[in-house]
Amino acid sequence: MVPEQDVLTISTIWSQLARRAEQEKTLHLADWFASDPDRFARFSLEDAGLLADFSKQRMSDEIRDLLVKLADERQLRHWTEALFGGAEVNCTEGRPAKHWCLREPADRAPMVHEQLDAMEDMVNRILKGHWRGVMGDAITDVVNVGVGGSDLGPLMAAFALQSCLPPQGLSRPRLHFASSMDGSQVSQILQELNPRTTLFLVSSKSFTTVDTLHNATTARQWLGRGLGLDCDDASLLRCHFIGISANPERMSEWGIMPDNQLLFWDWVGGRYSLWSAIGMPIALTVGMDGFRDMLAGAHEMDHHCRTRPWENNIPVMLALVDVWNINFLGINARAVLPYDGRLKHLPAYLEQLEMESNGKSVARSGEPVEYGTCPVIWGEVGPNAQHAFFQLLHQGTQPIACEFLMTARRYTEAQHFDAVCELEAQHSLSNANCLAQSRLLALGERALDPEVALPSYKRYHGNQPSTTLVLEELSPRVLGALLAMYEHKVFVQAVIWGINPFDQWGVEMGKVIATGMLEVLADPESASGLDASSLALARHIAKRQK
Amino acid sequence: MVPEQDVLTISTIWSQLARRAEQEKTLHLADWFASDPDRFARFSLEDAGLLADFSKQRMSDEIRDLLVKLADERQLRHWTEALFGGAEVNCTEGRPAKHWCLREPADRAPMVHEQLDAMEDMVNRILKGHWRGVMGDAITDVVNVGVGGSDLGPLMAAFALQSCLPPQGLSRPRLHFASSMDGSQVSQILQELNPRTTLFLVSSKSFTTVDTLHNATTARQWLGRGLGLDCDDASLLRCHFIGISANPERMSEWGIMPDNQLLFWDWVGGRYSLWSAIGMPIALTVGMDGFRDMLAGAHEMDHHCRTRPWENNIPVMLALVDVWNINFLGINARAVLPYDGRLKHLPAYLEQLEMESNGKSVARSGEPVEYGTCPVIWGEVGPNAQHAFFQLLHQGTQPIACEFLMTARRYTEAQHFDAVCELEAQHSLSNANCLAQSRLLALGERALDPEVALPSYKRYHGNQPSTTLVLEELSPRVLGALLAMYEHKVFVQAVIWGINPFDQWGVEMGKVIATGMLEVLADPESASGLDASSLALARHIAKRQK
Repeated sequence: MVPEQDVLTISTIWSQLARRAEQEKTLHLADWFASDPDRFARFSLEDAGLLADFSKQRMSDEIRDLLVKLADERQLRHWTEALFGGAEVNCTEGRPAKHWCLREPADRAPMVHEQLDAMEDMVNRILKGHWRGVMGDAITDVVNVGVGGSDLGPLMAAFALQSCLPPQGLSRPRLHFASSMDGSQVSQILQELNPRTTLFLVSSKSFTTVDTLHNATTARQWLGRGLGLDCDDASLLRCHFIGISANPERMSEWGIMPDNQLLFWDWVGGRYSLWSAIGMPIALTVGMDGFRDMLAGAHEMDHHCRTRPWENNIPVMLALVDVWNINFLGINARAVLPYDGRLKHLPAYLEQLEMESNGKSVARSGEPVEYGTCPVIWGEVGPNAQHAFFQLLHQGTQPIACEFLMTARRYTEAQHFDAVCELEAQHSLSNANCLAQSRLLALGERALDPEVALPSYKRYHGNQPSTTLVLEELSPRVLGALLAMYEHKVFVQAVIWGINPFDQWGVEMGKVIATGMLEVLADPESASGLDASSLALARHIAKRQK
Repeated sequence: MVPEQDVLTISTIWSQLARRAEQEKTLHLADWFASDPDRFARFSLEDAGLLADFSKQRMSDEIRDLLVKLADERQLRHWTEALFGGAEVNCTEGRPAKHWCLREPADRAPMVHEQLDAMEDMVNRILKGHWRGVMGDAITDVVNVGVGGSDLGPLMAAFALQSCLPPQGLSRPRLHFASSMDGSQVSQILQELNPRTTLFLVSSKSFTTVDTLHNATTARQWLGRGLGLDCDDASLLRCHFIGISANPERMSEWGIMPDNQLLFWDWVGGRYSLWSAIGMPIALTVGMDGFRDMLAGAHEMDHHCRTRPWENNIPVMLALVDVWNINFLGINARAVLPYDGRLKHLPAYLEQLEMESNGKSVARSGEPVEYGTCPVIWGEVGPNAQHAFFQLLHQGTQPIACEFLMTARRYTEAQHFDAVCELEAQHSLSNANCLAQSRLLALGERALDPEVALPSYKRYHGNQPSTTLVLEELSPRVLGALLAMYEHKVFVQAVIWGINPFDQWGVEMGKVIATGMLEVLADPESASGLDASSLALARHIAKRQK
């Protein structure tokens, strides 16, 4: 295994970086570009359908080289080999993190492919109209019941790939996502869908997630009532529920029929699980071939990450740039800004992937860290964000890093309908806005030609760093590469910071306390040991429910 | 008008607050509760269907009193009177900000009510099926074409109020929102809707917003093709387009028929416009009576804000607490966490309202400010955020303020169907989780009873401050009060910081540069004066589009 490491902040490279940051803090990105017109060639990387442009980051060759040295000093090579070698990189839970294995070819991961084949069989039966409800109807609506990793990944990717044409001769069901424990989505579904033609996918790694089980139970009772059957009726369960979990016993206990169970494994973290059967909504959108293309794109990125030298390695450079921004330039937030609306759910997906993985303050050694780790990540479809919070990016008081995403080719499927000219014009308009915003954020009013004197409230300070990612097109393959890129980026940052990105102990205690609170809400007067605020709020609510 | 003000940071109250923050920084929220069991009574406020609990903020009576004094020193009384008196509080654009006037009764705002009546007529014709497409069909689908303030408010509120029963005997159309300039939504709409039964609302204050006009034009050409009519055909325009704007000339030029024009005014900022005809999607959801209830709730909050002493004033206290957190406790981000999924779009709405209003770094005086203004605001439906980024709130390295929202009563409409028991249980579960999380964030592991020794990676430091807002129920009236509360809170903060919350100069220059970029994308080789990154990206994209 990897040897015990020194504390990050006593590293001499760390001090050198801090000194560099101090020296260069008066430099403006406009200066960087003026003095170094070849920046783009040296600070951009391309592979697997992706171009990453780091040249609008506040970084010189020397800083990049120091960051790469830091990666070496932090034993990044050992750690990537530990990750891809299946070592127990998740130290607090004593297990490996093998989401990359879900992308391996059949000969290297037979267990994985066995489940993919079982999934393919179900997907094809649904898409061909052979999967039937208990009354014999074909399935028109599929509801994904899951939360967190069992929701955000499938939702994001299925939405992103919706414009891919459905597989030839197959008919896509309408997809719905019921995640929130308060029943918001499920109550809408009960009103709008037909129980005879609705199939539920119940997705939960542990199959104990209270949010998901509540939603699934509400759905099950609705089905029973709507179909005039007992909720425990075997044919109701067989025809209307598929379960996806790492816990087959719990699935069976709940009532998922053995033939309707798809499995994944302990060594797949929830937020890394869309590559497994958890991704079934994606396969229902693009067919199983499309889903396998997505896996192939991710596998390509795995290879890239494992083999490319750090300075030519997209996820590694993304991670190092982020470390530079966070730990040396004092940037506490990053905005994710896709200029392609199909990536609308990407910010929410990344909020989980990054903040749940690296929102940690204890090192692997058990000691508290003495530096910032994960910043706040948030975002919105770029053109819409321009009308919402770009004001703060351009003229606010905090430095914020931005991540722009564009697609080079789009609306190729629109060739099949008449609006192709108008839509292509909209796509160009959106890309032009993306380029305009990253330029203005970098250069500020110096982006204007000629520069003019402006009143202070019209001035743009600029010097906000950004990375731009260009996707060749939003295909399953390129999307797969993009998401794997983010996974590895998160891992590399964790290595630099010396933290474990694969656990999430910070979400456990809330579950315990919530159970107690449920009793308090039912009878606030019996509560003891509660703080004054929580007790008063519980009383306030209880009184209004009477 | 209000007299010229001193620089905020030379205020003696400001220094006293800074000293307090220094003295109390070692105090933990668990200590505040232990030493002050009556906190809730003194740090909670109730009115207009809302309860606001500030007792989980890191604040004493003394700090509260100092903040209230700061508000006086910053002339908050003058400023609220200036706002509600219609003075030119938007100094850089030389105009008043009279969104509150949209909530005034008919005798005080006849011009406003004239437009409301015109809107009511249209809304009723649509809901009764009397509004017909050009071929004589009743309208089944209404598409709101707008962006920023013409999208986020109507979308958020219409979605929030969807569970209110539709007005008796009326039939709600399906609502769609096309905002993003890249055509993502409009391209879906073209594929899924029937031009004979689809009505478009084109909403833009200036009626020059390029995003909106592109989407509207794509829709118009689709209608023309689908209906076999010329795009300029008068009956097509009359039957399928309503325009909502402050610029009737531009509406007419575009082709909106005079009878189909609804107006609002220069003195309504886009992000404050959902109370005007821009709110038509809300009225199509809850009927015009419901819409007027929402206005009444907001008017109630206007009265509250204008008349309540600062220490008993919900928006004022929300603003002061935020100032305390941002400027004295060094908190750079706030998470908005609704535990009612119907408020799913509230975080995006507030991102605009707060970050566009107060994401400023220049004071009214023209001088740069020397303190932080608006922090990063982001959020997600609370229970889902628990599975996404709560890890970072509990165990990350940054202090973050949270805002929890709950509804006391819910699923009253569910009495009309069978699932009421299950859904009520889900509602309680969600509220229990909300209380559990705010308690744990405040107290950390000291929330556990008995306290136990934990390994470092399982520890919870706590001391993350939060406010909890309880809505009696999510009715149009309470929602109106809630949104007006946020509007006034943003205004109060701007007064403290000495900035203008009503302009948005930071979004103007990007539009200019984007126009130039469109030409660059069409022919990168003809570009001159561009930075190396933008030019190379444009070339990369152009090459891939061939």
